Amino acid sequence: MHAFTEEMELLAPSALAEEFDAGRIGLVVEGKEEITKICCALDATLSVVRTAAASGADMLVVHHTPLWKPVTALTGPTAELMREILSARLNVYVMHTNFDRAAGGVNDALCELLLLSDCRPMTHLGAIGTCTLDIPGIAHRLGGSLRVWGNLTSCRNLAVVAGSGFDPEFISEAFTLGADAFLSAEMKHSVARAAPVPCIESTHYALEAPAMKRLAGQNGWQYIDDPPKLSVYP
Amino acid sequence: MHAFTEEMELLAPSALAEEFDAGRIGLVVEGKEEITKICCALDATLSVVRTAAASGADMLVVHHTPLWKPVTALTGPTAELMREILSARLNVYVMHTNFDRAAGGVNDALCELLLLSDCRPMTHLGAIGTCTLDIPGIAHRLGGSLRVWGNLTSCRNLAVVAGSGFDPEFISEAFTLGADAFLSAEMKHSVARAAPVPCIESTHYALEAPAMKRLAGQNGWQYIDDPPKLSVYP
Amino acid sequence: MHAFTEEMELLAPSALAEEFDAGRIGLVVEGKEEITKICCALDATLSVVRTAAASGADMLVVHHTPLWKPVTALTGPTAELMREILSARLNVYVMHTNFDRAAGGVNDALCELLLLSDCRPMTHLGAIGTCTLDIPGIAHRLGGSLRVWGNLTSCRNLAVVAGSGFDPEFISEAFTLGADAFLSAEMKHSVARAAPVPCIESTHYALEAPAMKRLAGQNGWQYIDDPPKLSVYP
Amino acid sequence: MHAFTEEMELLAPSALAEEFDAGRIGLVVEGKEEITKICCALDATLSVVRTAAASGADMLVVHHTPLWKPVTALTGPTAELMREILSARLNVYVMHTNFDRAAGGVNDALCELLLLSDCRPMTHLGAIGTCTLDIPGIAHRLGGSLRVWGNLTSCRNLAVVAGSGFDPEFISEAFTLGADAFLSAEMKHSVARAAPVPCIESTHYALEAPAMKRLAGQNGWQYIDDPPKLSVYP
Amino acid sequence: MHAFTEEMELLAPSALAEEFDAGRIGLVVEGKEEITKICCALDATLSVVRTAAASGADMLVVHHTPLWKPVTALTGPTAELMREILSARLNVYVMHTNFDRAAGGVNDALCELLLLSDCRPMTHLGAIGTCTLDIPGIAHRLGGSLRVWGNLTSCRNLAVVAGSGFDPEFISEAFTLGADAFLSAEMKHSVARAAPVPCIESTHYALEAPAMKRLAGQNGWQYIDDPPKLSVYP
Amino acid sequence: MHAFTEEMELLAPSALAEEFDAGRIGLVVEGKEEITKICCALDATLSVVRTAAASGADMLVVHHTPLWKPVTALTGPTAELMREILSARLNVYVMHTNFDRAAGGVNDALCELLLLSDCRPMTHLGAIGTCTLDIPGIAHRLGGSLRVWGNLTSCRNLAVVAGSGFDPEFISEAFTLGADAFLSAEMKHSVARAAPVPCIESTHYALEAPAMKRLAGQNGWQYIDDPPKLSVYP
Repeated sequence: MHAFTEEMELLAPSALAEEFDAGRIGLVVEGKEEITKICCALDATLSVVRTAAASGADMLVVHHTPLWKPVTALTGPTAELMREILSARLNVYVMHTNFDRAAGGVNDALCELLLLSDCRPMTHLGAIGTCTLDIPGIAHRLGGSLRVWGNLTSCRNLAVVAGSGFDPEFISEAFTLGADAFLSAEMKHSVARAAPVPCIESTHYALEAPAMKRLAGQNGWQYIDDPPKLSVYP
Repeated sequence: MHAFTEEMELLAPSALAEEFDAGRIGLVVEGKEEITKICCALDATLSVVRTAAASGADMLVVHHTPLWKPVTALTGPTAELMREILSARLNVYVMHTNFDRAAGGVNDALCELLLLSDCRPMTHLGAIGTCTLDIPGIAHRLGGSLRVWGNLTSCRNLAVVAGSGFDPEFISEAFTLGADAFLSAEMKHSVARAAPVPCIESTHYALEAPAMKRLAGQNGWQYIDDPPKLSVYP
Repeated sequence: MHAFTEEMELLAPSALAEEFDAGRIGLVVEGKEEITKICCALDATLSVVRTAAASGADMLVVHHTPLWKPVTALTGPTAELMREILSARLNVYVMHTNFDRAAGGVNDALCELLLLSDCRPMTHLGAIGTCTLDIPGIAHRLGGSLRVWGNLTSCRNLAVVAGSGFDPEFISEAFTLGADAFLSAEMKHSVARAAPVPCIESTHYALEAPAMKRLAGQNGWQYIDDPPKLSVYP
Repeated sequence: MHAFTEEMELLAPSALAEEFDAGRIGLVVEGKEEITKICCALDATLSVVRTAAASGADMLVVHHTPLWKPVTALTGPTAELMREILSARLNVYVMHTNFDRAAGGVNDALCELLLLSDCRPMTHLGAIGTCTLDIPGIAHRLGGSLRVWGNLTSCRNLAVVAGSGFDPEFISEAFTLGADAFLSAEMKHSVARAAPVPCIESTHYALEAPAMKRLAGQNGWQYIDDPPKLSVYP
Repeated sequence: MHAFTEEMELLAPSALAEEFDAGRIGLVVEGKEEITKICCALDATLSVVRTAAASGADMLVVHHTPLWKPVTALTGPTAELMREILSARLNVYVMHTNFDRAAGGVNDALCELLLLSDCRPMTHLGAIGTCTLDIPGIAHRLGGSLRVWGNLTSCRNLAVVAGSGFDPEFISEAFTLGADAFLSAEMKHSVARAAPVPCIESTHYALEAPAMKRLAGQNGWQYIDDPPKLSVYP
Repeated sequence: MHAFTEEMELLAPSALAEEFDAGRIGLVVEGKEEITKICCALDATLSVVRTAAASGADMLVVHHTPLWKPVTALTGPTAELMREILSARLNVYVMHTNFDRAAGGVNDALCELLLLSDCRPMTHLGAIGTCTLDIPGIAHRLGGSLRVWGNLTSCRNLAVVAGSGFDPEFISEAFTLGADAFLSAEMKHSVARAAPVPCIESTHYALEAPAMKRLAGQNGWQYIDDPPKLSVYP
C-alpha cells in the first residue's frame, strides 16, 4: 500500500489539488493492506464496485470520490455502496483536481484524444491547442453527440477543459488566447449568453473517462467502463 | 408606473420569491416615469434592449435580471448594456422566482405547453401531471432537441421544473410522487448518476421563454424572442 | 423497521434533541429492513458491535453515535468499525440528547439509581432531588470511585446531570435551587474554581450506562456492557 | 486609455489601497476608449458630471467612487447619475486610499497647504509636522470654520489625517509622536471624550479637495469644484 | 437595588433596546447592594465618577456605558476609571437605546427642549414635529453652535434624532414625512452629499444631555454636567 | 514596570502563545507603575489576591488570566475580584501558553518534577521522555491521586502534557513516538475510548502549579499556593 501511495503521489501530486478537495482525495476508503490487483474507473458506482470485487481487486482508483458531502450517517444508497466496498476489503483511491492538472492527467489525455498539437496549459485548468478535426470529427472521437452554443465557424484554435469547465473566467482566458471555440461540459444558460467564444458542450463522462482508461492501460490495471445512459432526441 | 407596479405585484407577488432574489426583482433599472409601451422577453440582452428601444418602449419586463452579481463598477458589456437601457430611459422590471411560482407563471405555462393534465405543484418548484405526449412529442412542443438520462420507458407521470431544476431534492420528491420522468435543464453528471428517475434535459430558454411569451400575449405587450443559438451534432 | 422507529420516537422524541444532534440521531447506519433481534449499549465500540453481530442482532441501540465528526473518508478504526457493522447488516440507532431529556431517559434512570426522591427537572438538563445516600453510598451505587471538588458537608439536596454536565450555567441553577452538591462527569479546573456548590465527579459511563441497561430490560433487548477500563491510584 | 491607466498607476499605485477598496478604484465606469480631455473633482456628483460632459471631457478623475455600495439595481439618483455618465460616454476613474497614501497625494497636499515642515508620515495614514500657523490661520488656509475639541494651547506639532481620520489608534500614535493637536474630519463623541490630544475638526471636503485641485493643476486637467453648502450658526 | 432596577425597567424597558446593546445596559458595574443616593450623567467620565463618589452616591445612572468594547484586560484609562468606581463601591446603571425610545426618554426630552408641537415618532428613532424656532433659536436652546448642510429655507417641519442619527434611511423617512430639515449629530460627507433634506448638525452631548438632566430632576437625583470642551473658529 | 515586562518577555516570549491567547496574556490588570514586591500563583483567585495585597505586593504573576471571557460588565464575583485587585493597585501579569512552551516553562518543570530523562518536546505541546517511576511514584511526586484509563503495563516511555492536554492529535503523536503512557488532565469519555495508548489523568493544578512555584523560587518571588480542595472516594 505504501509503495502504491507513493507512486500515485508521483502521478498526481496532492499539492496540485484545489482546496475544496482537502480530505476528499487519496485513500478515501481503507481495505486490505496488501495490493495485488488494481481496477480503475471514473466513478465508484455500485456496478463498478461489484465488478472490481468480483474480479478479486484490492484497489479501485477513481476520479470522483463516493463521499463528497461529509456524512454523519450511512444510509440508503451510500450504506449499500459502502457495505459493498468495505465487505470486499476493497481500497478506494481518489485522484481528482490533482489529476486534472497533472502531466499526463485528465486534460492531457483529452488533448491527446482530440489530436491537438501545440498544446499550452491555461492558468486554472485545461489547455488550448491546434485542432484539425471538425465538429463531427470531435463528436466521433468523444463517442457521443455535442451541443454547440453560438456561431461556430472554426475550431482550429480549440480550448478544452475536461469536466464541468464552463467558467466565465476560463472562457475569457481562452478568448484572450485566441480560441475559436471552447469545449467542456455542463453549460449554463447565463454563461452561454455571455460567452465571448462559441462553446461546444460534451458530457463530463465523455471528457474525463478517457484519462482513466489511458491511466489503466499505462499501468496494466483493469479499466471498468460505466457510462451513464444518455440518448438524444430527435 | 405606480399602477404598473401594482399590477405586476398581483401577477407575481414578490413574497413568493426566493430569499436570494432580494434586491434583484421588481424595478432594477429606472427610466421614464410614464409607461406607454411595454415589451417583454426572457433576458435583457443587448439585442432585446435595442429592439425594445427602437420600438419606442418605456418598459421591458424580463425573467432574468441583467445585474445578478452586485457591482461596484460598470465596465465592458455591462457598461454597454446599461448605457443602452439608461440612454433610452427604458425601465427594466424583473419577475424571477416569484413568477416561477405564481399562478399562471413559468411552471404553469410549461404545464400548459406540454398539455399536462391533473397538475399538482411540487413543494419547492415545478409540478407533476399526466402527459400524453411521447419524447418526440415533447421535443416538438419545446421546439428543440432533448437529452434523456437513464432508461426512460414512459413519461406518463411527468414532473417538470422550468429552468435549472435538476436538484436531487426535487427529483427525490418527484420519485416519491410516482413520476416516470423528470424534465428540466442543466443536468450535472453527479446528479444524473444518483437520480432515482430518468431525466429529460431541455434548455433553460426552451422551458422558460413560453411563459414570457404567454404573459406578453395576455397583456397586449410586444414579445421579443431572442433564443441562444444552439445546434446539435451529429 | 418502521414500527421500531415509531416506537423509538415515542421513547425519545427527536424534537427533544439539542440542535447539534441534527443528523446524528435516529438511524445512523442502515442494515436489514426487518428487525428481529435488538441489542443495546452505551457506545458502538468494536467489541460491542462484534458481540451484537455474533448474537444475530439486526439492530443496535446506542447513546453515542459512532460518526460524530462528519467524514469524507472511511479509514483506520472508523473503516474497521463500519465494515463490521455494514457486513453484518446491523442497523445502528442513536438516541442522544433526546434520550437525556426524555421521561424515563438518562437523567431519570440516574435519579432512580441514586434513589432520589422529590425529583424536579432542571431547565437545560438533569434534575435535583432529595438524596439519602452519603458519598460512599453514591460511589457504591455508581460502581466506581468519585472525586469531590470543594467542601462537601451534605448531599441531601443533590443535583445530577448525567454525562459531561459541569456547565457553569447548570451549576448556577442548581445553586439557586438550593443544591448541596452537584454530581456529573468531566470536571474542568476553571469550572471547579468558580463553582458555587461542591461538585462530585463520576464518569460519563457510570452516569449514563444505567439508563441504557434499564431501557434494554424494559424492552426485552440484550444489553451489552463495555465499560472503559479505569483504575485509581493510590 | 491604456497609457492613461499606466500613468495613473504611477501616480497612485493600486497596491497602496486599503483592502476595502478592492473593486472600487481604477476605472469604475467605462466610456470612450480614446481620452482627449480630462476633468478632475473630489466627488462624481450630478453637477460635476454635467459640467464635465458639457466641457467635452472623456475622462473624470475623482477621489470618491459613485458606486460604493455594491448594487443590483440602478434606480433613483444612482440611475440618474449613471445615465448622465454613460450617455456622455464619460469614463470615471477613482483613486481613493491609494491616493491618500501616494507621494504627492491627499495627505501630502494637505501638509503643503498648511505649510507644514519636517513632515513625517504616520503608520496608517496622515503625517505629523511643524506648523507655524495658529487656528485662525489654519481655518483661513482650509477656507472654512473649524471646531476644536479639548484645551488647545499650541498646534506647533500638528498631526493631520485628510478625510475621516479620527481613529483612536491614529490619535494615539500622534500623541506618542508628540503631537500638540490632531486635525481631521467627522469627529465622534466617544472618540473626542477619550482623545489624549486636542482635536481640530474640519470637513472632509476642505481637507481632501486641495489634493484633487493640485493634481489637476500638475497635469493640465480641468478642475471642477463642488463643495457641499455648509453654514455655521451663530 | 432590586426596587431601583424594577423602577428603571419601567422608565426604560430593556426590550426597547437595539440588539447591539445586549450585555451593555442595566447594571454594568456592581457596587453596594443598598442604594441611598443616586447621581445621573450622560457619560461615566473620570470626572463624573469622582464627583459622584465624593458626594457619597451609591449609584450612577448614565446613557453611555463605560465598557462598550468587550475587554480581556483592564489597563490605562479603563483601569483608572474602574478602580475609581469599584473602590467607591459605586454602582453604574446604563440606559441607552432603550431610553432613546422610551416615553419621556432622550428623543422626547429633545422635542420638549425645542418646543416642538404635534410630535410623531419616526420608525426607527427620533420624531418629527412643528417647530416655531429659527436656527439661531435652536442653537440658543441647545446651548452651542450648529452647522447647517444644504440650503435651509425653513425648519417648520423639523425631524430630530438625538445622538448620532444621520442615517440615510432615517433622513429618507423624514423627507417622505415632509420634513424641511433634519437635526442630529456627527454628519458624514457622503451622507450630507446624498441627503434629500437640509441637515442641521449639533453635537451628541447637546442633543442627549438634556434628557439625563430632566430625568434627574424628575426623580430627585443629583445631575452631574460634564460637557466636552468645544470651541468654534473663526 | 518596563524592566519587569522585558524580563518576562525573555522568560516566556509572547510569540510562543496560541492565537486564542491574544489580548489575554501580559499585563491584564494595571496597578502601580513601580514594582517592588512580586507574588506568583497559578490562578488569580480572591484568596490569592488578598494574600498578595496583604503582603504588600505590587505585582502578581499567574498562569491563568482572571478575565478569560471578554466582558462588557463587571458584576458578581468578577466585580469583587477586580475591586480587590484595583483597590490594592496590584498589577496582574499573565503567562499562559507562551509559558507552557517556554524553555524552563510549564512542561519543562513537569518533566523535571517527574525526573524524566532524554526529554524531547512534542509538536504542539508537552514532551516525551524516559520515566523510572511507577504509577504510585508518579502520584507521589504530583501529590495527589491519579486515574488510569486503559491497560497500563509500563510507563517507561512517558508522554506528558501539562494542563488539559488529552487532545486526540497529541495522543496520536505520542503513540507514534513510542509512548507507553500519556499523562495529562481533564479526560473526556470519547477521547479515552479512542486513545491508542493508556492515559494517566491527574489534575490541572497538580501538573501546572509546580512550574509557577519553581519560577517563584528562581526569581526570589513569593509563591502563593491555593490548590482546589479535592478528595477521592472511596
